[in-house]
Amino acid sequence: MIDLDNTIVAISTAAGAGAIAVIRLTGPKSVDICKKVFVPKRKNKDLKKQETASVHFGSIVDNGVEIDEVLVSLFLKPNSFTGEDTVEISCHGAPYIQQKIIEILIKAGAKMAQPGEFTQRAFLNGKMDLSQAEAVADLISSQNEAARKVALQQMKGGFSNELTLLRNNLLHFISLIELELDFSEEDVEFADRKQLLDLVNKISDAITKLISSFSLGNAIKNGVPVVIAGQTNTGKSTLLNAILKEDKAIVSNIHGTTRDVIEDTINIEGITFRFIDTAGIRQTDDTIENIGIERTFNKIESASVVLLMLDVKNSIDKMNDDIMKIKNRLSNGQKLIVLINKIDLDSNNAYNFNKNTFEHLNENDALIKIAAKEKINLDLLFKELISFVNTDAIDNNQVVITNARHFEALSNAHDAIVRVINGLETQLSADFIAQDIRECLHYLGEITGAISTDEVLGNIFKNFCIGK
Amino acid sequence: MIDLDNTIVAISTAAGAGAIAVIRLTGPKSVDICKKVFVPKRKNKDLKKQETASVHFGSIVDNGVEIDEVLVSLFLKPNSFTGEDTVEISCHGAPYIQQKIIEILIKAGAKMAQPGEFTQRAFLNGKMDLSQAEAVADLISSQNEAARKVALQQMKGGFSNELTLLRNNLLHFISLIELELDFSEEDVEFADRKQLLDLVNKISDAITKLISSFSLGNAIKNGVPVVIAGQTNTGKSTLLNAILKEDKAIVSNIHGTTRDVIEDTINIEGITFRFIDTAGIRQTDDTIENIGIERTFNKIESASVVLLMLDVKNSIDKMNDDIMKIKNRLSNGQKLIVLINKIDLDSNNAYNFNKNTFEHLNENDALIKIAAKEKINLDLLFKELISFVNTDAIDNNQVVITNARHFEALSNAHDAIVRVINGLETQLSADFIAQDIRECLHYLGEITGAISTDEVLGNIFKNFCIGK
Repeated sequence: MIDLDNTIVAISTAAGAGAIAVIRLTGPKSVDICKKVFVPKRKNKDLKKQETASVHFGSIVDNGVEIDEVLVSLFLKPNSFTGEDTVEISCHGAPYIQQKIIEILIKAGAKMAQPGEFTQRAFLNGKMDLSQAEAVADLISSQNEAARKVALQQMKGGFSNELTLLRNNLLHFISLIELELDFSEEDVEFADRKQLLDLVNKISDAITKLISSFSLGNAIKNGVPVVIAGQTNTGKSTLLNAILKEDKAIVSNIHGTTRDVIEDTINIEGITFRFIDTAGIRQTDDTIENIGIERTFNKIESASVVLLMLDVKNSIDKMNDDIMKIKNRLSNGQKLIVLINKIDLDSNNAYNFNKNTFEHLNENDALIKIAAKEKINLDLLFKELISFVNTDAIDNNQVVITNARHFEALSNAHDAIVRVINGLETQLSADFIAQDIRECLHYLGEITGAISTDEVLGNIFKNFCIGK
Repeated sequence: MIDLDNTIVAISTAAGAGAIAVIRLTGPKSVDICKKVFVPKRKNKDLKKQETASVHFGSIVDNGVEIDEVLVSLFLKPNSFTGEDTVEISCHGAPYIQQKIIEILIKAGAKMAQPGEFTQRAFLNGKMDLSQAEAVADLISSQNEAARKVALQQMKGGFSNELTLLRNNLLHFISLIELELDFSEEDVEFADRKQLLDLVNKISDAITKLISSFSLGNAIKNGVPVVIAGQTNTGKSTLLNAILKEDKAIVSNIHGTTRDVIEDTINIEGITFRFIDTAGIRQTDDTIENIGIERTFNKIESASVVLLMLDVKNSIDKMNDDIMKIKNRLSNGQKLIVLINKIDLDSNNAYNFNKNTFEHLNENDALIKIAAKEKINLDLLFKELISFVNTDAIDNNQVVITNARHFEALSNAHDAIVRVINGLETQLSADFIAQDIRECLHYLGEITGAISTDEVLGNIFKNFCIGK
């Protein structure tokens, strides 16, 4: 529970020693508290009389003992991140000094900030809505270009704007319905049911589009799991090494070398892919190896993309058999890319192969001929992987949902809007329809924080770092 | 080799993810480079026309793509740490974003900073002397109150002022001597030899005082090594645990439990003590334990303080024997503190013991009766440890030498000044005396950097972190 009357303090830069560190105060007494412990270099300067966005050189002093030379930056209400008076103290980066200054500021009346409290205050003070506040955390933890881009767009209000538009349409709609309810005894219809249905269908489409962007958003945020599967000794570890450009997996030509599941991530065009090498699938009596093979099937089932490695030297019947085994394990939405490996050693004239060569492959599957060891055609593989993710939405600056909480709220909102559509189509009475619309508005409001509880806020901000 | 025409860039906050991070540019093109990649929120704001110590909100942009929302602080020549135009960019703290902004700034014309280059530039631009620059690194790595205090005092020029005073006195002195040399054919003495001798003796005393402060300075910087020695099962590990307030060492009542040398540090009144628990010293056939005992003796010889644990239940003859064994290993300057342990189990009436009870103890040794397990009289031990370090110099804000380079230069300066004194006493000719004085001036100048080479500078700054 945040008390906006408190003034809070935290270290805002990364933990550990650096050349400098930044300690941040926010709240109504920020400048007063800072003034108590800060002696400006220019003696007669009064911190209380300085302008916003100004920087001041001086010393932090504790009971007359100088602790450090610092720069103090002032950001005065409402021109700060939190919307409150905020002071940033840039000190020398020794952890001892950082801690000491925190102690002095607490002695002078500041309270230690809770995780995410700076951002939560920005939300509570109306500087941003809840989805923007969540985007701040995403931005801070972004590890690739796509994640950064989506988080920044969301932080700057891209998603909020879409939601506002949806809510405004719904509010217009419900005002008409409620007008009818006010005059319900007179049995009039102010809203043309046909026009209403069109409007609600449009809203439903917009929500559906946002919901469907979550698979991309989730891939951006958490990476796309790609399993490398196939018979032993088809070159799976060699492929992983070629992709990672380093020797993560032990490569040998002894069957069954890879027993553990090996995992690593790379960024391709700003998207993170989590590559998972697996134990080769074959009949074996080796208990440990069999455990590995069982794990392989588990990994295949939870992957977004399965790379099936085939050895070009094998017969087409054997390849068809391998493809079938994997296809049996795959469900809708999972992508299969068949890699015919070792084409540099081709004794099978594989250059003439295409998808039609293999009876179990359909139009959604891909087939690429590669030579993992020689790094031939890896670029085609990367292109196929990127096309699976389909980054057009990011490139076109569309709103992409990356947050499971938003996904859930949108799904609930969608359920409600579907009930509205059904209600209109079955000529349900206006009060039932109004109730479903209100429910839809409720779920959309949860995303922006127009509707929120302390518990929801607590859950969201507890995962923030302290200092943000 | 620093080229001041370059504009350099580095991340100045600690490595890793934080809420925010600070990227710093310094050099003649800092503002120009920043202007190329920074779009201010207030569209018509020209970064080139802003005042020093002002902060500006906006975005870092790369080829039209917005990368992050940032705050840009300007510090214009000469009102900056380096004395050059400096720009600090406060961005969101994701390592990915930090790295991206560094790349963009390098693309815009900045060069990656070398370790310590910001501070080296401050030195080269005359913002601080070399001893002050070195103190910046000490301040950043200070881990306790004493180290912080001494580093800050040195950074603010406390040491430099002392050196300037010494050099001015010497310069006054040499000017008199050189006047004599100019008139050497006339065989006159402009300087009263007696007065000169007084002056040089005063300078010698000042240098001696600085040199002798190094043992304190070194203890402050590197911690004071304290070895806990004694027979097996006298409670050495129990004492270490009591001191550290945690169970670092395995405690048992089986003789010879501690075989490794266990080490940990605590701060007592701002001084770091490195406590070293050791294998108990006794006759044994256990090979591993014997190696441990040999190590114990090595540790005793390199300690500043030796805590000798004695069991109150043993006979005075046995205690005397133990004391003698340790005393034989100690040299001048090492402090022995005898701890009579387990006084809560006293069957020996140890309360009547004092130093005179034990024939080998002298006035420099200390004797304290404790009960490690019950934490009785540990405060007396802490007081004795602190009195050994003698922190009066720090409390009185005297200059304390912490840097081995300064210690060496002062020692060389002292050798030269001793030759000057000898020269004056043996009525050596003025030109010889003048040469020794010049040598002394040279060594003092090495400390402040009045005399320095690229090699010396390189050695000093290579140990700085990048970004400072």
